[in-house]
Amino acid sequence: MEAAATSKVDVLIIGAGPAGLMLSLWMAKLGVKTRVVDKRTGKIVSGQADGFQCRTLEIFDSFGIGHKVWHEANHMHEVSFWNPDEDGKIRRHHRGPNTQPKLSRFTEAVLHQGRVESILIDTIRASASPKHPLVEIERSVMPTSLHIDESCVDDEDAYPVEVTLRHLTEEEATPTQRLSNLQDGLYRSNLAEDDTERLLANTAGVGREEKVKAKYVVGCDGAHSWVRKTLGEEYQMKGESTDAIWGVLDIIPITDFPDIRSRCMIHSAEFGAMMIIPRENKLVRVYTQLKQVSTGTGRVDRSQITPDVILETARKILSPYTLDYHYIDWWTAYQIGQRVGDRFSKHNRVFLTGDAVHTHSPKAGQGMNVSMGDTYNLGWKLGLVCKKLLQPHVLDTYELERRQIARQLIAFDHKFSRLFSGRPAKDASDEAGSSMSEFQQAFREAQLFITGVGIHYQPSILTSDSDLKGGLQGTETPSQSQVTSLAESAAHCQPGRRFASQIVLSQADARPWELQLHLPSNGRFRVVVFGGDISQATQLATVNKLGGWLQANVLSPTKSPRISLAPGPDPRGGSGSSQWMTDEDPSIVDVLLVHSAPRDKIELLQDLHEVFHPFDKKLGWDYGKVFADDHGKAHKHYGVDPGRGAVVAVRPDGYIGLVTGLQAEDGWTRLQAWFGGLLRPSPSSS
Amino acid sequence: MEAAATSKVDVLIIGAGPAGLMLSLWMAKLGVKTRVVDKRTGKIVSGQADGFQCRTLEIFDSFGIGHKVWHEANHMHEVSFWNPDEDGKIRRHHRGPNTQPKLSRFTEAVLHQGRVESILIDTIRASASPKHPLVEIERSVMPTSLHIDESCVDDEDAYPVEVTLRHLTEEEATPTQRLSNLQDGLYRSNLAEDDTERLLANTAGVGREEKVKAKYVVGCDGAHSWVRKTLGEEYQMKGESTDAIWGVLDIIPITDFPDIRSRCMIHSAEFGAMMIIPRENKLVRVYTQLKQVSTGTGRVDRSQITPDVILETARKILSPYTLDYHYIDWWTAYQIGQRVGDRFSKHNRVFLTGDAVHTHSPKAGQGMNVSMGDTYNLGWKLGLVCKKLLQPHVLDTYELERRQIARQLIAFDHKFSRLFSGRPAKDASDEAGSSMSEFQQAFREAQLFITGVGIHYQPSILTSDSDLKGGLQGTETPSQSQVTSLAESAAHCQPGRRFASQIVLSQADARPWELQLHLPSNGRFRVVVFGGDISQATQLATVNKLGGWLQANVLSPTKSPRISLAPGPDPRGGSGSSQWMTDEDPSIVDVLLVHSAPRDKIELLQDLHEVFHPFDKKLGWDYGKVFADDHGKAHKHYGVDPGRGAVVAVRPDGYIGLVTGLQAEDGWTRLQAWFGGLLRPSPSSS
Repeated sequence: MEAAATSKVDVLIIGAGPAGLMLSLWMAKLGVKTRVVDKRTGKIVSGQADGFQCRTLEIFDSFGIGHKVWHEANHMHEVSFWNPDEDGKIRRHHRGPNTQPKLSRFTEAVLHQGRVESILIDTIRASASPKHPLVEIERSVMPTSLHIDESCVDDEDAYPVEVTLRHLTEEEATPTQRLSNLQDGLYRSNLAEDDTERLLANTAGVGREEKVKAKYVVGCDGAHSWVRKTLGEEYQMKGESTDAIWGVLDIIPITDFPDIRSRCMIHSAEFGAMMIIPRENKLVRVYTQLKQVSTGTGRVDRSQITPDVILETARKILSPYTLDYHYIDWWTAYQIGQRVGDRFSKHNRVFLTGDAVHTHSPKAGQGMNVSMGDTYNLGWKLGLVCKKLLQPHVLDTYELERRQIARQLIAFDHKFSRLFSGRPAKDASDEAGSSMSEFQQAFREAQLFITGVGIHYQPSILTSDSDLKGGLQGTETPSQSQVTSLAESAAHCQPGRRFASQIVLSQADARPWELQLHLPSNGRFRVVVFGGDISQATQLATVNKLGGWLQANVLSPTKSPRISLAPGPDPRGGSGSSQWMTDEDPSIVDVLLVHSAPRDKIELLQDLHEVFHPFDKKLGWDYGKVFADDHGKAHKHYGVDPGRGAVVAVRPDGYIGLVTGLQAEDGWTRLQAWFGGLLRPSPSSS
Repeated sequence: MEAAATSKVDVLIIGAGPAGLMLSLWMAKLGVKTRVVDKRTGKIVSGQADGFQCRTLEIFDSFGIGHKVWHEANHMHEVSFWNPDEDGKIRRHHRGPNTQPKLSRFTEAVLHQGRVESILIDTIRASASPKHPLVEIERSVMPTSLHIDESCVDDEDAYPVEVTLRHLTEEEATPTQRLSNLQDGLYRSNLAEDDTERLLANTAGVGREEKVKAKYVVGCDGAHSWVRKTLGEEYQMKGESTDAIWGVLDIIPITDFPDIRSRCMIHSAEFGAMMIIPRENKLVRVYTQLKQVSTGTGRVDRSQITPDVILETARKILSPYTLDYHYIDWWTAYQIGQRVGDRFSKHNRVFLTGDAVHTHSPKAGQGMNVSMGDTYNLGWKLGLVCKKLLQPHVLDTYELERRQIARQLIAFDHKFSRLFSGRPAKDASDEAGSSMSEFQQAFREAQLFITGVGIHYQPSILTSDSDLKGGLQGTETPSQSQVTSLAESAAHCQPGRRFASQIVLSQADARPWELQLHLPSNGRFRVVVFGGDISQATQLATVNKLGGWLQANVLSPTKSPRISLAPGPDPRGGSGSSQWMTDEDPSIVDVLLVHSAPRDKIELLQDLHEVFHPFDKKLGWDYGKVFADDHGKAHKHYGVDPGRGAVVAVRPDGYIGLVTGLQAEDGWTRLQAWFGGLLRPSPSSS
């Protein structure tokens, strides 16, 4: 063992799967000094997760990579339910849209995890610049010890977490299991043993060790999370397993089953259930319940599970249709269970994300999405705290917001997977059976949650309370919000939900844009001003008065928080999109204006306050912040009265923080109070 | 000088600009042994061409790269015309759409040439496989001699063209002109001297020479084309120059001119004309007429032309608006002229393309588009002849089709650039002035041509005659077509025009698709069957009878031409799209079916003949060839009566070859005759 070196880093990420890579992408975009380690020698090349939900695709789009995934993925437009008919033969009972129309500009799409990891890694690399250090993925490196110096966890300049990293040999980092020519499908399954203990025990003179002192450590290290185990007993996940075992095959199917390119939920009378997920490149993923290996006695005999066993089961379920394959890409099997941790962080210095803190069954295509959702939520907070732009207590909201989602996920999966694994009821009197209509209804009702579009964070310092009755169902903690929204101003923009996209026209060049694309993930907050019909002189005056106030009072560059008075990044792709927040331009609030006046009645430079077209002495005016909403269609969709207007403050992750009015008496003070609770005074005013 | 080696290659491409790269892409996709040489040391990184017309974007899409260019480019939706008012002050006289709506799913888009060259080169590289040799771009290599052995130009196995290639030193391949820190903007301009002669004269012991024997040589070597000059006097371009000189600046403008992000055509009263092209990454291209350097005495004094001179002119034209910049990306100047060659090929063994055979002014954004259009037209013909799938005489159609386009381009540019450079008429009696309304009208009327969507190839062996009156205007040669279309069957599918796109639903999975994306550029012809309402038993029987005839008679695998009975490539991106025509699957005709029955009334495998869902023993059925046209909207757009149906045969470049009916008496024989005139007997039947 070589002597240990010690280095310092702002953020140390353990695990380079989807959760770790999403976090790395934030760090790369925000220019935070980061290391990412993964104990495996390379990224996966087939199998594993494959489903991308609408909200995840919107998030990819906010990083400028949505179109790449969308182009390569298979889009799942349809779902078919097949149930046994009176004779016990399967029959198509229902066919309908897989994703509720108009929830998002995307639909659920399917592409294998490894391909998306490649796109993420390329984007992380492309974010490097002289001002932004390269965030490299270090393979074959695992942590062997973690210690938190509790005496300095409240000192923001301290590096309280010390981690020992071991550089593994190639042999250690490569799983040895192989089965014929196919990688053993079970080696990453929850039926498999974890090799961490074995690797830790192997101290026999191999590999180099080093010590790293970090401000923050994030465990993105999966269901067997070493970080979680290291944090102690109280971080153990709680939940249960059923005895239902399911097998998975990724094949190019040869079949006369008519709906093989449709998503299918199939229940056979006798042989269990099956799901079909049509994939990219002619692949189809087949999930089949493996009744014959569900021993119910605890331990499952792994040797019983082979691709042939899964295929045979699928054939029985699909009978009288045939199923065969020549090409198999991957296979696995798993035991259904739902577990979630109580605690997602320790001292806001070590965080757990993704499978490290919640596990469930894969069939609803949630795992990779919720895992990336965790680190998409955490990343900007961590990055802006490291850059001393955000108050550190905002980090509390990570656990608050994501534990709620994890618990909703577990509850959904508990219900859905039990209904799916159940034997179909023969009739209404068959109480031991699952009701197929109840199953279909559960799938339909869960749409908002499944797509990720329905995520609704509870009130907190980040999310204002609504002054309307009702509001969020099932929140678990009392509101921590210090500001109340005037929710009526933009009735369909609920605080805590994602700011939806509508098509608007650029004032400067008439290009139609998805408005969401002008809220890229670059660490900035947004003040979206819905100006209403500013061809009316009084309405224009109100909007410009707000502009003046934004510039001169609360949001001036010398006060907190700092508003962007420099032109924003070009939302088009290419080199333009790498113009993220930089040290030269530390603006943290962007202002956008959407008005419903006829576009040709407005002259951008002449009619509107400079805050809506900021000037830079090298780049000139910014032409990208004002949008015309022809015929007020978007105003209507956002619930804004064009005669009154509204202001919506949006968090850097695209979730709505505050809704208020255009006028001083209702709007400005709330905006000031909300930002005041989040942002730090800028250096020049402190 | 080292001793010359001799090697053999099917196709030798001289020049790696847009024309050469488009041709290289075809060769890479079709797996033809190709070399590409360019005398420069690297590709351009800024400036040059920047406009992409709708049809070019459709062509990119057919190679799976349209979305990349579209994502990065600036989309030009609007054009503004500014003319002097009564006081001689410029004023916005008209603002309207830059591209006629609904011509294409794209609009004109702008991105600098170097970025698109990068995307093309990456795609060429990604097309390499064990079966498809890598097509590499060899830099710093120029031809020094070319000899055609006329004794064997008719022997398809011969390599009649011998070319000597010299590998230049780094110094020779790098232009020496520099002006301050900016590359001399004029070095690729038509005002500059060409350095080919100087390089050829330099035989003093530098560089390695080699001899290459090629079946075909293609000159993509620009306006100073060495290949053209080598072919002799009769290949000289003919035309004229005006004394109008224009300057070009690529800058990030600092200006209060309100329409700076709109395409603008500006005529000042006294200081000449100007065009504004808003670009990606905040750049704007400014074209200004340089009246002060238009000496009219022939030779232009290049030293008079600097970025400052161009800026000063622009300022005068824009006055009273201001114009300045901090950042300049590139600049140049050019003299307006139009020249075109009479002959585009010699013995169908050496071809001229792009600027090597037609030059004109750049302001209508045509040059790069027409140049790539040339090689897009030539590439598949050359590739399929090399693969012995196409009869060699089809190569005659390259000159026939593209010379017609070049002449139309020259005529358009002649009119447009003279109107643009003209002094605006003060009133109707001012005969020396240009009429601004005539100028606007010329721009509007040329839309179909400018967008590339209106290209209409004349009848030939590739393009059937229409039986309808009227037809193509202004064709110059008598029809060479041997087949006549039943044009009424699909009244809006004119032979010789590109097969337009409509959105249809995949029968197998309900995904909406642009139909054009299922006609990728992979070397295959298509038989698009418009089945009409096949929920009617008689109509279904007609369609299936045609299917049977296609499979069993004319198009069986053992006869000529060969139809695809293997599943086609996956039109999604990623690895799937590299499944082009291969040696294992030399099918050259794809069959697609679009029907207007309600989608849920049709079962793909059960109701339709196998030719519409071919089977492969490794890949199963093909689910990607049948589309539902909900409510018959696409049928209507293509001009097909859903009660009768139609058959449209489409060339590998997406142009319509033949339109006919579904029935034996009107459809089958025409289809057989058309393919018979083009395709070679397959080896097994010859």
